[in-house]
Amino acid sequence: MQVAVMGFGTVGSGVVELILKNKKSIQERSGQNSLDIKHILDIRDFSSHQLADLFTKDFNDILNDKDVQIVVETMGGLNPAFEFVSKSLEAGKSVVTSNKELVAAKGYELLELAKKNNVNFLFEASVGGGIPIIRPINQCLAANEFLEVAGILNGTTNFILTKMIDEGMDFDEALKIAQANGYAERDPSADILGHDAARKICILASLCFGKHVYPDEVETEGITNIAKEDVEYAKAWGGVIKLIGRSKKQSSGKISATVGPCLIKNGCQLASVTDVFNAILVRGDAVGDAVFYGRGAGKFPTASAVVADVIDCAKHTERRKLIGWEPAENDYVINPLEQSSALYVRADASDYNAVAEKVKASFDGAQILNYDNENKNEIAFVTPLMNEKDAREKIDSLNLEVKNILRVLDY
Amino acid sequence: MQVAVMGFGTVGSGVVELILKNKKSIQERSGQNSLDIKHILDIRDFSSHQLADLFTKDFNDILNDKDVQIVVETMGGLNPAFEFVSKSLEAGKSVVTSNKELVAAKGYELLELAKKNNVNFLFEASVGGGIPIIRPINQCLAANEFLEVAGILNGTTNFILTKMIDEGMDFDEALKIAQANGYAERDPSADILGHDAARKICILASLCFGKHVYPDEVETEGITNIAKEDVEYAKAWGGVIKLIGRSKKQSSGKISATVGPCLIKNGCQLASVTDVFNAILVRGDAVGDAVFYGRGAGKFPTASAVVADVIDCAKHTERRKLIGWEPAENDYVINPLEQSSALYVRADASDYNAVAEKVKASFDGAQILNYDNENKNEIAFVTPLMNEKDAREKIDSLNLEVKNILRVLDY
Repeated sequence: MQVAVMGFGTVGSGVVELILKNKKSIQERSGQNSLDIKHILDIRDFSSHQLADLFTKDFNDILNDKDVQIVVETMGGLNPAFEFVSKSLEAGKSVVTSNKELVAAKGYELLELAKKNNVNFLFEASVGGGIPIIRPINQCLAANEFLEVAGILNGTTNFILTKMIDEGMDFDEALKIAQANGYAERDPSADILGHDAARKICILASLCFGKHVYPDEVETEGITNIAKEDVEYAKAWGGVIKLIGRSKKQSSGKISATVGPCLIKNGCQLASVTDVFNAILVRGDAVGDAVFYGRGAGKFPTASAVVADVIDCAKHTERRKLIGWEPAENDYVINPLEQSSALYVRADASDYNAVAEKVKASFDGAQILNYDNENKNEIAFVTPLMNEKDAREKIDSLNLEVKNILRVLDY
Repeated sequence: MQVAVMGFGTVGSGVVELILKNKKSIQERSGQNSLDIKHILDIRDFSSHQLADLFTKDFNDILNDKDVQIVVETMGGLNPAFEFVSKSLEAGKSVVTSNKELVAAKGYELLELAKKNNVNFLFEASVGGGIPIIRPINQCLAANEFLEVAGILNGTTNFILTKMIDEGMDFDEALKIAQANGYAERDPSADILGHDAARKICILASLCFGKHVYPDEVETEGITNIAKEDVEYAKAWGGVIKLIGRSKKQSSGKISATVGPCLIKNGCQLASVTDVFNAILVRGDAVGDAVFYGRGAGKFPTASAVVADVIDCAKHTERRKLIGWEPAENDYVINPLEQSSALYVRADASDYNAVAEKVKASFDGAQILNYDNENKNEIAFVTPLMNEKDAREKIDSLNLEVKNILRVLDY
């Protein structure tokens, strides 16, 4: 069986190394006598690389090679990945990708194309890096109706928040350390603004609930607005702040889909996920809560997921794996204001006691938060669980100078 | 597609209910127009049950029915489960089981039998209840060489230890509450003595490392010897006591395999697993650590795993799923004394200071543990990581009246 790898960056080079390193067991587990890399596509020059003979700059070398049955796409981005993947599928080759942007934007189209051409399109590495999550949802939990999927889907922001929580850093300082460690890119916006997590919750929601969700349908907030004070108030409340991607089935059959920083109680399995680790919680009607934890990024963890898909393609050359979803109706994703939420609010309060009284009068069961050495001109509180639109209107009516509003995870 | 269920206890009745409840999506995900239960085998009388027509007391009704392609075994125990499963496989029927005793004792034989007859023998529910773990190890992590697998594999003992840790109960009191809640059986020995966890680590080790491990090869210690004092000293050390099943690949190619209570540092993903929940950590050379968490037992979580396997069998009627392992050589499982361990020791110490001096002199880097209101005639300490045989000989040479020795998990 011959494999081509498109894109020799961190993940692509990891895939090549891993296939070479664990070749014997990978072949056995594929049920193949051989599993070899025939082409590596990259526009850069690798003429002095030890695998120089395998490199090409021309996609047609892969497309027109009948021996290549599996194409690995680890280029990232939509162009030319979408074109190359489409053409590979149309040529009867199975495709494995780690490209979350591609799956979130074009997943439905590409899955349909794979189906039409009786080949596989697999994307285990597109969510949670090395954490097994796509296949467990699609196969191991296939007896369940899914109620919710949520998780810490971005390692960069989780590293930054961990530094803020454990070492009292502010956001800018923590971001600099993340960049120095190679966990954040020079332009970190896709991570810190939540776009990366939004792509991943799209993929998870599409898979769990059966209809394609696009990134622009996901209300997305990053972590740039999180202050040290928020971290301290969260501690006083008995929890931590994490960037959570979350999608929940509504009784109407529609779904919610959001990305944003949330307060989570200590003791919840997601609260203890630190550093660059990711974790995904899946709630099914039969299984209850299952949580999947591991390294959400990195060369070999991500390569581990890609190669698992390659093995699966090699095992399923005659038969397709059943995976896919449908297009969604226009108003499938609800406005988050329609959902029930408890909200954390931090606001200016020059007259603390008066504001505290107003808050208590407006929200029956509001919890005022305090910590040692807090700023006496600020107030923070958590509302009870209620319709989010009503809650935000009530907060507006208090005429506070609001510094931050975050959702509270109800588990 | 017709299915037969053998054993209508907690799990078997859950399987039947779940297939009926989520019938439409289960059929879709199986790629089948229909997926129906044709027979239910149970020796008890269900003549007034709403599904009375499906019940039989005669296994031959299933064995001789050519329409039945998938047999679910949820009877438990070795007899007659082994006979019925063997005959079903020989008759060309795929078998799905939740029976860990059967898989731990007869897994290799039954997998060979399935291979010979070109049918599937699947057992996702035999470890971790509803937690997806068998398939993730076998497929999602197939690109990895496995280094270690470890976990909290028994919900009953985890519930008891949680009560001891969080509410300061002693073992007997916590066991009574577990029994009152239905989490422990009237005869709780298989759980509290560690035998249930031992069967599960056998299955995990066989799958990860490729050779069958039998329960009598696993050094097994339960939790009956854990005292409130041990729980307090573990807290003072910064952790908790959990019953851990663990198997680790040695550089020689052999493996270790043990079940016993261990000290785990807070912050480790296994430390925050409370109540009846289970969690399994898998360490691979590419993925690093991945952790799988969820309900390790119970009617619907376990049924969720069984039905996922049924769906997989329905999808793979023409082709077998690749799963299996080889028989092991005689000395494949090492004596735990050969491994490196840090040990926790609690012992009588009528002359505390003298004993503390002796401990420090014997173990370079030993950590003496203390908590408020501790018994002044007792000492507890943790040795450095060292060859376990040497450590135990040194402890012997101290001539202490030892109350408990536990291993310390090195992550």
